[in-house]
Amino acid sequence: MSSVVITGIGELATQAEQGLLTDAAMVIEADRLAWVGPAAQAPPADERVDLGGRAVIPGFVDSHSHLVFAGDRSAEFEARMTGTPYAAGGIRTTVAATREAADEQLAANVARLVAEMHRQGTTHVEIKSGYGLTVVDEARSLAIARRFTDDTTFLGAHVVPQGSDPAAYVDLVTGAMLDAAAPHARWIDVFCERGAFDADQARTILNAGRDKGLKGRLHANQLGEGPGVQLACELGLAAVDHCTFLSDADVDALAESGTVATLLPGVEFSTRQPWPDARRLLDAGVRVALASDCNPGSCYTSSLPFCIAMAVRDMGMSPAEALWSATAGGALALDRDDVGVLDVGRRADFAVLDAPSYVHLAYRPGVPLVEQTWIGGRRAG
Amino acid sequence: MSSVVITGIGELATQAEQGLLTDAAMVIEADRLAWVGPAAQAPPADERVDLGGRAVIPGFVDSHSHLVFAGDRSAEFEARMTGTPYAAGGIRTTVAATREAADEQLAANVARLVAEMHRQGTTHVEIKSGYGLTVVDEARSLAIARRFTDDTTFLGAHVVPQGSDPAAYVDLVTGAMLDAAAPHARWIDVFCERGAFDADQARTILNAGRDKGLKGRLHANQLGEGPGVQLACELGLAAVDHCTFLSDADVDALAESGTVATLLPGVEFSTRQPWPDARRLLDAGVRVALASDCNPGSCYTSSLPFCIAMAVRDMGMSPAEALWSATAGGALALDRDDVGVLDVGRRADFAVLDAPSYVHLAYRPGVPLVEQTWIGGRRAG
Ligand SMILES: [Zn+2]
Ligand SMILES: [Zn+2]
Repeated sequence: MSSVVITGIGELATQAEQGLLTDAAMVIEADRLAWVGPAAQAPPADERVDLGGRAVIPGFVDSHSHLVFAGDRSAEFEARMTGTPYAAGGIRTTVAATREAADEQLAANVARLVAEMHRQGTTHVEIKSGYGLTVVDEARSLAIARRFTDDTTFLGAHVVPQGSDPAAYVDLVTGAMLDAAAPHARWIDVFCERGAFDADQARTILNAGRDKGLKGRLHANQLGEGPGVQLACELGLAAVDHCTFLSDADVDALAESGTVATLLPGVEFSTRQPWPDARRLLDAGVRVALASDCNPGSCYTSSLPFCIAMAVRDMGMSPAEALWSATAGGALALDRDDVGVLDVGRRADFAVLDAPSYVHLAYRPGVPLVEQTWIGGRRAG
Repeated sequence: MSSVVITGIGELATQAEQGLLTDAAMVIEADRLAWVGPAAQAPPADERVDLGGRAVIPGFVDSHSHLVFAGDRSAEFEARMTGTPYAAGGIRTTVAATREAADEQLAANVARLVAEMHRQGTTHVEIKSGYGLTVVDEARSLAIARRFTDDTTFLGAHVVPQGSDPAAYVDLVTGAMLDAAAPHARWIDVFCERGAFDADQARTILNAGRDKGLKGRLHANQLGEGPGVQLACELGLAAVDHCTFLSDADVDALAESGTVATLLPGVEFSTRQPWPDARRLLDAGVRVALASDCNPGSCYTSSLPFCIAMAVRDMGMSPAEALWSATAGGALALDRDDVGVLDVGRRADFAVLDAPSYVHLAYRPGVPLVEQTWIGGRRAG
């Protein structure tokens, strides 16, 4: 087994006990980190890569995305931004296009977006179903997602499909659809929001998933306060996502439960919603993650650097907090101990920045600063 | 002279009379466009490049940047964002570092940033001096900038240097410094703002520049209302930049004079200032440009796509208006008729997007969508 020493790291933001190192090195063996520390103390290795003083960060762990879809909704976006009337089908447009698309067309779209994420420093991504909403289309969406990640999430409970009875649809989601989805999924998720699924329905669906071996997560409190965040905390879920509107009791519940609050700045950006108050959460001791929510409707960014810049400008996070949330925080939100942190034994998943410091991710908004992405010890972009 | 036909253009946003074409082609001869129109009517050419349905836009014309500098101010940025006390030297830090830097160090920094701009679709950039503030350092800053663009701007009147008498400094700027700068500059600029240069000083400096053959432009109304915008209109300048705080009389003057109002969203982003109201300007008939203002202090983005996304989300521009402002609008702001528009006789400067439409520049914030940049008929990135 040959080893590689990565040296000339001007700044290494480990997110581990060693904190922020300057003039650092890492040794890779196979797909893992075998050593991390000051360059002067680096052990010998078979190969050597010199990064010329660039900053290195863990690869972003994007814990929330909806990449299995077909169709384009840029006209709907344009109408929303300009206040122009538009007969938008919303999510129904995407559901119809996704059902019509061939497997290989859907897979090609996921591949395109995953490659785009890699180029922007994301090394691990969670992918949800939720635009199929039939037994067959949810199962195939997850089977396609599984080609790209082991963090696949069954989101049959994204919305009640047009023309379906809500109670009958919950029965389907917890019955035949769950049976077909479970072999391809690690997680089960519910859009718990007024107009979608209420707390009782969400609890029923999450419990049914748990009985099939799926771990729960939730979309909640995006459009207003509601019961979702406290349900997530009560059930001890790994994460509850959006958290735009929170009561004091919600914040307390998050702090006590340890459930990660995953904030999705791209959604607030592209829907002109208020920013979630990350500062309030951090000050209360809540664990906060940042993710893209990449999807064709409410947020079509795949850029964690963009989310970091927004979080620092508009959500009260420091650059260091935002970086932690997009790396180690994302890993916690996915209940993983192999990614998001650069330490011995972790996966050698990292991004090399064309910058002297990770602070430039916020200091230089919009600039594509990721020069190299390494996944499992190999250059992936 | 060999010709190239660029075909397979799914959408061509010409910014010229032909408007938005679908399934279009362009023919390039030397560095110019020889033909633009529907693909089915394209004349033959020696070579053929098929873009596979991608969208093409004119290269961005970034009419406002400060790229000749040395030093890093990320710690100052971080302190500003987090509300942490920090003994920031502000612009003085950059002036000191710039004076100390060797010519080749300054040139390497400009080259790095210009290359970064190219990768993001910018094909023409204006570059200012203004971190030298001595006769020698302003002249060498402009000579370095001139290696990269013919739109160089003498900004000796950026700030009164520490320890200088304001009146004596204006005499220097309009005297020996102007004499040394003029051979390397096309434009002269003044930071006309409370605490910097007032309207009388700005008029004196702009008139002195005009007498040496330099065309005027202004920084004005960034930090509050003031006389700068109306002075720019009165003098018939090509552009006045920032325009964050405008009275009704300012808006009227801009509409009547035809002076371009150049808005700089990255500055408002990175300083948490209010957004300029582009909608108000457009509704009044003002010509609006968007530019980066790339500089190490108030705004270190070089990304026009980022500026477009902000302008659409927060400044009331449609995606089409924002694109015009970052291309044709930038050309007007620099008083040029060779760039910013894709039409016969114009420079073959354009960006190929990894997207079906220019709308994706706003729909997909932060995502590096520029796949190819062509400058003067050749691939530059
Ligand atoms: Zn979502
Ligand atoms: Zn400026």
